[in-house]
Amino acid sequence: MDNDDTRRGKPTVHKAFDEATAILAGDALQTLAFDVLSRHSAHSDPEIRAALVQCLARASGIGGMAGGQMLDLEAEGRFTENNQPPGLTMEDVERLQRMKTGALLIGCCQAGAILGDADEDARRAIERYGRAIGFAFQLADDLLDFEGDAAQVGKAVGKDAAKNKGTFVSMMGPRAAKRKLDELVDDAKWALRPFGARAEWLVARADFVASRKS
Amino acid sequence: MDNDDTRRGKPTVHKAFDEATAILAGDALQTLAFDVLSRHSAHSDPEIRAALVQCLARASGIGGMAGGQMLDLEAEGRFTENNQPPGLTMEDVERLQRMKTGALLIGCCQAGAILGDADEDARRAIERYGRAIGFAFQLADDLLDFEGDAAQVGKAVGKDAAKNKGTFVSMMGPRAAKRKLDELVDDAKWALRPFGARAEWLVARADFVASRKS
Repeated sequence: MDNDDTRRGKPTVHKAFDEATAILAGDALQTLAFDVLSRHSAHSDPEIRAALVQCLARASGIGGMAGGQMLDLEAEGRFTENNQPPGLTMEDVERLQRMKTGALLIGCCQAGAILGDADEDARRAIERYGRAIGFAFQLADDLLDFEGDAAQVGKAVGKDAAKNKGTFVSMMGPRAAKRKLDELVDDAKWALRPFGARAEWLVARADFVASRKS
Repeated sequence: MDNDDTRRGKPTVHKAFDEATAILAGDALQTLAFDVLSRHSAHSDPEIRAALVQCLARASGIGGMAGGQMLDLEAEGRFTENNQPPGLTMEDVERLQRMKTGALLIGCCQAGAILGDADEDARRAIERYGRAIGFAFQLADDLLDFEGDAAQVGKAVGKDAAKNKGTFVSMMGPRAAKRKLDELVDDAKWALRPFGARAEWLVARADFVASRKS
């Protein structure tokens, strides 16, 4: 299991170096993404390049990742130990997660649609897929945290619960969360139907999101 | 005088709120800049929009602001109280400042050249202007820190010196720094000569950079 200081068994940047270095590395890498997308080598059509920049900016800015992270900070501690959310509804948590992690996943899907010059119907289908796997990814993450920690240290709640963090699992319970996860994966695959066999790779990604163990 | 907790008499974001909020506000605002530049409303020509994004990304990324800030962090504490720089040369400090604050000022000038469809000569002139006022801005800042604090608390060195921070003033002394500042303002104005009266506004900015008192 990951914790705040490791990712897949390796120390995080803020642990291996320090917090200032981690923040600056993040700033530099995010800026590099805009740099790359705006280069001629990204696409010969400048209209496409500008659209990709717009897509990434929307996904990572105030209406996406950065805004969602802020909502997450605000939400921390607003959950009590018996999982009674004082003021936070299921819709609040869904919105927070849709922004914090969902927006960037949806943005990646939209970028594909932009590059593939998708029509309106195809664009909507791919966004629906992105929304579903974004939500599924977060649910799977919450379930891993819940179950991983339970197996590891023999307690029923993991680091999110310890922080009184609002997660889907703490709000709906692990059974309902697993059911919801299955529904979302089905929905993601359903959205891909119009693309037939061309979408096989994306179908496999939807299964991976739900079944990953780390 | 500004210190680390106030800017122009108002508390900084990390003081008024907290550090996490300040970092996220910065992330969100920088991303918004890319968002704005990539929009149709920024310019009707997508080639120009992509070039503006490229310009901002280069100025603020690893080769500009973020990279310069990292060099600055590394340099802190590498200066001793008697201003003997252990390993940091004048060229190091110039490079650090050119990246940390200069790159974004030069980038603003380049953005003007992109929007004005400047030819090669005009572009070079405007970049020379940007480089000069970028350096001048930093020198003026160091001088204000040095003199402001001296007047205020009766000691000869200010917050930068207290941190053993490498500044132009600590390395060359206040007299030479003032001479250099005048030279840079002259150079900035000289670079604008080809534009004649059209560059009056920029000439005034060069004077402002050198004469500002806060």
